[in-house]
Amino acid sequence: MVLFNCDYNEGAHPKIMARMMETNLEQTVGYGEDPYCKKARELIKARCGRDDIEVQFLVGGTQANLTVIAATLRPHQGVISADSGHINVHETGAIEATGHKVIALPSADGKLTAQQVEDYWNGHWNDGTHEHIVQPGMVYISNPTEIGSIYTKAELTALSEVCNRCGMPLYMDGARLGYGLAAEDNDLTMADITELCDVYYIGGTKVGALFGEAVVIRNEAIKKDFRYMIKQRGGMLAKGRLLGIQFLTLFEDGLYEEVSQHAVSAARKIRKVCEERGFSFLTPSTTNQQFPILPNTMIEKLKGKFGYSFWEKVDEEHSAIRFCTSWATREEDVDALCEMIRTL
Amino acid sequence: MVLFNCDYNEGAHPKIMARMMETNLEQTVGYGEDPYCKKARELIKARCGRDDIEVQFLVGGTQANLTVIAATLRPHQGVISADSGHINVHETGAIEATGHKVIALPSADGKLTAQQVEDYWNGHWNDGTHEHIVQPGMVYISNPTEIGSIYTKAELTALSEVCNRCGMPLYMDGARLGYGLAAEDNDLTMADITELCDVYYIGGTKVGALFGEAVVIRNEAIKKDFRYMIKQRGGMLAKGRLLGIQFLTLFEDGLYEEVSQHAVSAARKIRKVCEERGFSFLTPSTTNQQFPILPNTMIEKLKGKFGYSFWEKVDEEHSAIRFCTSWATREEDVDALCEMIRTL
Amino acid sequence: MVLFNCDYNEGAHPKIMARMMETNLEQTVGYGEDPYCKKARELIKARCGRDDIEVQFLVGGTQANLTVIAATLRPHQGVISADSGHINVHETGAIEATGHKVIALPSADGKLTAQQVEDYWNGHWNDGTHEHIVQPGMVYISNPTEIGSIYTKAELTALSEVCNRCGMPLYMDGARLGYGLAAEDNDLTMADITELCDVYYIGGTKVGALFGEAVVIRNEAIKKDFRYMIKQRGGMLAKGRLLGIQFLTLFEDGLYEEVSQHAVSAARKIRKVCEERGFSFLTPSTTNQQFPILPNTMIEKLKGKFGYSFWEKVDEEHSAIRFCTSWATREEDVDALCEMIRTL
Amino acid sequence: MVLFNCDYNEGAHPKIMARMMETNLEQTVGYGEDPYCKKARELIKARCGRDDIEVQFLVGGTQANLTVIAATLRPHQGVISADSGHINVHETGAIEATGHKVIALPSADGKLTAQQVEDYWNGHWNDGTHEHIVQPGMVYISNPTEIGSIYTKAELTALSEVCNRCGMPLYMDGARLGYGLAAEDNDLTMADITELCDVYYIGGTKVGALFGEAVVIRNEAIKKDFRYMIKQRGGMLAKGRLLGIQFLTLFEDGLYEEVSQHAVSAARKIRKVCEERGFSFLTPSTTNQQFPILPNTMIEKLKGKFGYSFWEKVDEEHSAIRFCTSWATREEDVDALCEMIRTL
Repeated sequence: MVLFNCDYNEGAHPKIMARMMETNLEQTVGYGEDPYCKKARELIKARCGRDDIEVQFLVGGTQANLTVIAATLRPHQGVISADSGHINVHETGAIEATGHKVIALPSADGKLTAQQVEDYWNGHWNDGTHEHIVQPGMVYISNPTEIGSIYTKAELTALSEVCNRCGMPLYMDGARLGYGLAAEDNDLTMADITELCDVYYIGGTKVGALFGEAVVIRNEAIKKDFRYMIKQRGGMLAKGRLLGIQFLTLFEDGLYEEVSQHAVSAARKIRKVCEERGFSFLTPSTTNQQFPILPNTMIEKLKGKFGYSFWEKVDEEHSAIRFCTSWATREEDVDALCEMIRTL
Repeated sequence: MVLFNCDYNEGAHPKIMARMMETNLEQTVGYGEDPYCKKARELIKARCGRDDIEVQFLVGGTQANLTVIAATLRPHQGVISADSGHINVHETGAIEATGHKVIALPSADGKLTAQQVEDYWNGHWNDGTHEHIVQPGMVYISNPTEIGSIYTKAELTALSEVCNRCGMPLYMDGARLGYGLAAEDNDLTMADITELCDVYYIGGTKVGALFGEAVVIRNEAIKKDFRYMIKQRGGMLAKGRLLGIQFLTLFEDGLYEEVSQHAVSAARKIRKVCEERGFSFLTPSTTNQQFPILPNTMIEKLKGKFGYSFWEKVDEEHSAIRFCTSWATREEDVDALCEMIRTL
Repeated sequence: MVLFNCDYNEGAHPKIMARMMETNLEQTVGYGEDPYCKKARELIKARCGRDDIEVQFLVGGTQANLTVIAATLRPHQGVISADSGHINVHETGAIEATGHKVIALPSADGKLTAQQVEDYWNGHWNDGTHEHIVQPGMVYISNPTEIGSIYTKAELTALSEVCNRCGMPLYMDGARLGYGLAAEDNDLTMADITELCDVYYIGGTKVGALFGEAVVIRNEAIKKDFRYMIKQRGGMLAKGRLLGIQFLTLFEDGLYEEVSQHAVSAARKIRKVCEERGFSFLTPSTTNQQFPILPNTMIEKLKGKFGYSFWEKVDEEHSAIRFCTSWATREEDVDALCEMIRTL
Repeated sequence: MVLFNCDYNEGAHPKIMARMMETNLEQTVGYGEDPYCKKARELIKARCGRDDIEVQFLVGGTQANLTVIAATLRPHQGVISADSGHINVHETGAIEATGHKVIALPSADGKLTAQQVEDYWNGHWNDGTHEHIVQPGMVYISNPTEIGSIYTKAELTALSEVCNRCGMPLYMDGARLGYGLAAEDNDLTMADITELCDVYYIGGTKVGALFGEAVVIRNEAIKKDFRYMIKQRGGMLAKGRLLGIQFLTLFEDGLYEEVSQHAVSAARKIRKVCEERGFSFLTPSTTNQQFPILPNTMIEKLKGKFGYSFWEKVDEEHSAIRFCTSWATREEDVDALCEMIRTL
């Protein structure tokens, strides 16, 4: 069976494995202060187009989210998120465990709008009892979102402006950032994101690395003592160079973009064949996750041949499922899946 | 101006003040282990009809809620609440500050149903990724609710059965419990509540006391070391007897019931006059809080004469407001308010 | 039996009770925004000699400590305290429950020195692995300390200078502040303390009030949103005026000083008679707590006549005990105790 | 320069790297539920001699410590540790950040004794104010300790008995467990440790793996929902098989023991040469860490040739430094270091 259920079924891109092998017996200092991390930071700074950012490497996404959010908020503050946001749904209350409420706003497409955030902010401050209510202290978005949608530059700019106006840092969870940047309708660059977000992370785990997320911090207050936060939350990898080596490899010769393009192209093929068959989608997505609504009979037949994630029941006879592609997806597997969809 | 905006505008019932004066210069041990607390505990146990419960006195409701909930849950668990629940809305994230998510379920009338709770529980355990999701660990209800409604014995019994089946303690916030028990359509006794809830509190602050809430614990696991929890959360009053004296006075000669009846009768008058005028209500309430929907012009005229809480805009010309009565409400003030409503 | 074991055995000064009775049926807004709290704040500001401080009223000392400290620190920071500090020993881990380590430094007399704090700070920053160690983020002192000693103006000034230099707010727990200011060898005024500490609290519970502590905040960063913190930690009293009325009464006509002087004079008598008998003390104290080292046989004879706190065994035949006086101590009781000590 | 400063300067044992390469493009389910993790669990269970233990894989030691401890304690409980314990000193307050005090007991050799623990427990419960004090809830030890010492079977048995008697789970931090088991004077087996500890972890990061610690849980209460805890604390690795593959390789053919023996032999050589020169040691150690006290002039000369950790100043002319060996230490480097020590 070939798995399309998620984007972390394999190890790492062979170039990364090769680099790990090459450097395996070298001795370096620990905790992310080695030459590989330094070089990886420089490459990321260059890609982001500014030198005054801080780049720190963490092992996983939940760890990155909880460390960044706990580092940013004061105790009485919460973080605004779409109700479908990963921190609100799939992190076992990791944010609450650091003492903060996730303020979940409704969202059909996984995104927050600038208007929503501004209205919530105004609502808070116009409420005579606001001291009895969690104060909104930062804004969390994911790009691409958990359901594959992406922010346009205009949308992100508007959000960023509201956040600046309100004094709430804007944080982007970029677990699948590469796949968002590679989308055909994307108009954001990493430099844009760096300007518009106070802090975000560039996902490695799902985009070519064995593991690892690069947290990029522009906001001075969040930079301050951030490495203490990493250590306290259990995220400071002893052999930190493992993260440096991976990001170095991803950002040295355009590998991050290359693997992202690869996954998005594969996803596009799957989307196309579903569209041709006249299937609709739970949500439009131009990234590596596709959520077609298929007849249950057809889903039944896929079982055992192709792995997918069951997403939700749509009606008695149809359900939405998720297909994920990744840097590791093989052409022949995509073709076989498409052929099966086409002919079932 | 006479205030009907809330039920904690005055001090305490004169009998309580008298008892405080009488005992003022006595010397007693601290921290709730004095003879007055002991006597108050006995009276409450008698009212609850069982001797194996633990009764502890706290100063306020948010303190009681956060102490009970943090004492009950393990780190990965959250507490199910109606979305309108006090802990979800008006406690500045006090529960999250102890590390736990409030799992808010939708509710039109402020109440949770047994079915809702069971469905959520089943949904959690049927989800293949449940370890990535906060585990529901207890259920919080308020009775009366924040919008004045009350649970019937049948509803509470059904909830209790689901909670037992799922192994989730059931906790009732009884900030206004007296006013619920005094409602004309109430069919619950304090003994019923003791049997059906694992833990609850009998509100004093809003029902005749200067301050104070009596936490009643039937569940053995929650009893264990509960006094450590009180101290840790800053809720152990040095002169604990002040709480004992108040609850002693409230439960000695039926004062708690008497003052509750008084408030509910006053609220009934206000409801009646609104009904006679043909005004509808945001929510039906037979307790001390009434939420009539009035023309904005009328609300405008009340201003300056009678204090109320603005609740929400209903349409362009109407809004819901809250009138609260209490143990301290004076007949003549209710009559004046009713007269004004009748004639405006 | 007459109790000298602690300073919170009685209720409140009769003037406070009288004021509570007088105002009992008045209607005021809640949560500390009523006219009594406003007036009490003005009086305290006047006593402190500056108008730009924020004054908030809390019910108890542990609550005050945990609220102030959690409001001040970032997650990776801890609070420096003498090892005998109340927060380190007798608050059931209330500070740790908010996520912060108490960094306990050794102290024989219950006090921290400026040198100790500076050395610890330097040690932290000179350690190459400092990111792996809790960062010292504020300094907690108590005055008088838990064993009755007080800071001189020179000592507090030196501490304050170190704290300023290091950017660590200085916080004074003033649970018994009145008794410190009334000590014969005290050279600090409340105005000095306001200048030298970033935040402190004026204890009411042990100095004439039924309950209540007035937190005085000079540091702008700690002021910000402090009322949210109070609410979140369960410390916002619904009938906040009860606190205002008490502090108003204490600070209106010098009552706070008067009752403090009374207790300290009584303690001096007890000290004198112990000195006359040739007993030594665990620690020199000019405040309301005295720690004489007495023969066990004598301690045995006191039992049943006078309440004391057993403090610690000194040798096989002697132990240190604590006698506390307070605003409520009666002359005749002190005389009887002294007579017994003199003649045993 | 050759580094002997710590035991995590290199990557992983070549056999582990080879296995990672081989499996790199396989597709497996995530989060530690893949066949490699299953197999690794079986091997570890076999080594521990019982099948009813739970084995979970985490990335690092601080993460393991905070996850285990927060999973075990109730809010009012703390964890007893030697004052030199890693959790007390070098984890940036990670334990306190989960709400719990580290109760640090003095220790000259890095170990806790059964007597110490029992005395502390009895002291707590005999204190009349114990509800005001953090309740000891579990015991943390490290083996080998942070300064290289190890527990004998008799010592661990005595500790275990006290812990059982008091109802406090015993937890062993085994970051360097392999190096302890390989010590010439060790009389513990992994099966003993499994019987005597409620929970412990087998360190991989410092003993041959790229990263990873295997948490072994015997205590049923700690097992319950432990995977939720891992996810909540950010420790659930998406590609969990990376951990399984490493521990599988370490435990399949005795590699864990082999690399541990290698490091300990190397350390023994260093110890011997220091002894021959007549140097004393900060602490006796038969494990991979050696703490010789050397003349500062000699330390100066090592600089630039061999990396070491400066540990502490001993007197004006001598300091203790740490040399670490590991699975990766090369014979020729040890010989060169020994030669230099011998001849300087």
